[in-house]
Amino acid sequence: MASNDTKSSRRAASIESFKVMDLLKRARELEAAGCDVVHLEVGEPDFATAEPVAEAAIQAVRAGLTQYTPASGIPELRERIAAFYDQRYGVQISPEQVLVTPGASGALLLAFASLVDAGQRIMTSDPGYPCNRQFLHFLNASAQLVPTGPAEKFQLTNALIAEHWQPETRGVLLASPSNPTGTLVPVDEMQAIAQRVRQLGGQLIVDELYHGLTYGVDAMTALQVDPECFVVNSFSKYFGMTGWRLGWLVAPEGAIKVMERMAQNLFISPPTVSQYAALAAFTPQSLEIFEARRAAFEGRRDFLVQGLRDLGFAIPAMPEGAFYVYADASHLTDDSFAFCWSLLEENHIAVTPGADFGQFNASRYVRFSYTTRLDQIEKALQRLAQRIRG
Amino acid sequence: MASNDTKSSRRAASIESFKVMDLLKRARELEAAGCDVVHLEVGEPDFATAEPVAEAAIQAVRAGLTQYTPASGIPELRERIAAFYDQRYGVQISPEQVLVTPGASGALLLAFASLVDAGQRIMTSDPGYPCNRQFLHFLNASAQLVPTGPAEKFQLTNALIAEHWQPETRGVLLASPSNPTGTLVPVDEMQAIAQRVRQLGGQLIVDELYHGLTYGVDAMTALQVDPECFVVNSFSKYFGMTGWRLGWLVAPEGAIKVMERMAQNLFISPPTVSQYAALAAFTPQSLEIFEARRAAFEGRRDFLVQGLRDLGFAIPAMPEGAFYVYADASHLTDDSFAFCWSLLEENHIAVTPGADFGQFNASRYVRFSYTTRLDQIEKALQRLAQRIRG
Repeated sequence: MASNDTKSSRRAASIESFKVMDLLKRARELEAAGCDVVHLEVGEPDFATAEPVAEAAIQAVRAGLTQYTPASGIPELRERIAAFYDQRYGVQISPEQVLVTPGASGALLLAFASLVDAGQRIMTSDPGYPCNRQFLHFLNASAQLVPTGPAEKFQLTNALIAEHWQPETRGVLLASPSNPTGTLVPVDEMQAIAQRVRQLGGQLIVDELYHGLTYGVDAMTALQVDPECFVVNSFSKYFGMTGWRLGWLVAPEGAIKVMERMAQNLFISPPTVSQYAALAAFTPQSLEIFEARRAAFEGRRDFLVQGLRDLGFAIPAMPEGAFYVYADASHLTDDSFAFCWSLLEENHIAVTPGADFGQFNASRYVRFSYTTRLDQIEKALQRLAQRIRG
Repeated sequence: MASNDTKSSRRAASIESFKVMDLLKRARELEAAGCDVVHLEVGEPDFATAEPVAEAAIQAVRAGLTQYTPASGIPELRERIAAFYDQRYGVQISPEQVLVTPGASGALLLAFASLVDAGQRIMTSDPGYPCNRQFLHFLNASAQLVPTGPAEKFQLTNALIAEHWQPETRGVLLASPSNPTGTLVPVDEMQAIAQRVRQLGGQLIVDELYHGLTYGVDAMTALQVDPECFVVNSFSKYFGMTGWRLGWLVAPEGAIKVMERMAQNLFISPPTVSQYAALAAFTPQSLEIFEARRAAFEGRRDFLVQGLRDLGFAIPAMPEGAFYVYADASHLTDDSFAFCWSLLEENHIAVTPGADFGQFNASRYVRFSYTTRLDQIEKALQRLAQRIRG
């Protein structure tokens, strides 16, 4: 068929694809040709869905629990999530403050749509999760990218927010732990930011997708310092349920009602079997599995960070969570995008270029994911060593 | 928690919820109080997911097929859907023309987003599926609602399109069979419309969600007369997979690439287990189940239409598909919305008011769904008879 790109809206024509997608395509070609590619670019845990969760899904299918659900999710799951905040953080929220969504993607889209009109902006850090920019662009709004570096652990601060606030800024998005850097927003800073954003009349949104996957530290939820903030979370990362497409959003009840009305129209409901499966994600048996995986991730992080530092990569902010290392490769290249291609072609290592996460100093950085086994990470480090030391 | 509605975007504040939702809530209250409510408002088949489809889902979970998939869907499913067009309609399309989406909702959102920029319009019939207006509103665009009535079988025509086309009109959306009327666009009209829209430089989008659920007639796909049109379909209706949230879109390859890029950012991927389950929806064994259900729907339609006509409801256009009867209740009321409430409160029959589908003559019409057993439909007709005849 002929392309009809010329008919595309400007909205669609200017949506960017991830640069890592082309790398991934090339990696598959190399593999098809017999090359042994080490994958350190993937943003998905390599662990299978935990057995109790899988079993709950099977039981739901057998029980015929496959019809539409309320747009906000099944009440049992909203209750279970609300209870989890008490259990894990000692924060009391009501189930009516929880909206179950098709992935955290659905939650982010609804949160932004509920806040911005055309031309308005949400402030967020550069580097950051690339889809956020695209969600806002999709809504005829935009992300206001504020450059952040090692000094702030790649996170927005109270001072930066005060400095960059504009009349069209509607809110601030933090990610703690952050993708791609794995850093957390410190508790006192989060408190100051919450106060600042409230005072400026904006809305604070906090991406807590990688909660549970923090090492040597437990992340606080932003709800502890700001009960009015929007918190986005997912069953994909700590709970290991990527392909099930299930996430959630916590917000004040009034805001949830507005977003639920949008969800009714946009999504009808989140996937039903996934919701029943997720009920089993909070049992002690499941949590034990997730905690074991967390320990495995921690071991990989320590190994990868040390290995990269030994090879001269600067990792100015030790990643405290998620499964990423945002490493400064400027001792090897002044073009990390070209470096990623070269790593793939010559050393068969797939990593994600900084350019996928923003523009500020992006050509210095590369994101390494530790979503693969230790022996694979070791292999990648050996190949890197050979490349660097000859 | 306090409401923070005041912080909402205009976009969010003006998204409408379905009027039937309040009715449904009241119906549940009545049921909780012991009332026997007959549900003729539901837009969801009452049949459980077919056993071979459920079994395929279970096998996928057991096999650990629960990771992200490509944003466009697993290649096997795209191939299977493409093959279905050959098998059912004798139309050849390539798998690269198929985008698997999170429900038809995802497909409609992507299709509109790929076409309209802020302020632009998509022409569609009033009455029509209410979410379409909201999708466009969500995108800072709008639906251009053209009043249609019995003379056109509630469908846009070539003449109406020519008459109402405006500079900001980017395309035309047809639904065949239509929700809420169940009517089809005749082949020759579809051909004329396709030509007209092409000549006007617009894009034709055809909602074929209820294909397979047509009675005494097989619907043609718009692809037969316009290989460049966008066709939206779903696994929810004929294939009975509502809660699995899976649909698809057929479009020229160039347009699919644009929408795939948006889908990557917006959805990451459609639910994985649902995709593997859907592979089993095309087997002869499954299709036999779906055809038996289709026959059951046909029997219900005939019974309901006859019963309503006997009670004086005008049904000017015999519904040829879907599972809805759009009935003119003007012999009983000049306010079908109040009539629906009264039907629920006094007769314990839940139906959907015309107001959910548009404005044109909406106060005359009520939508009856036959997504419930024949004995329930009979009970509703008896209650209606008692109400009318005393």
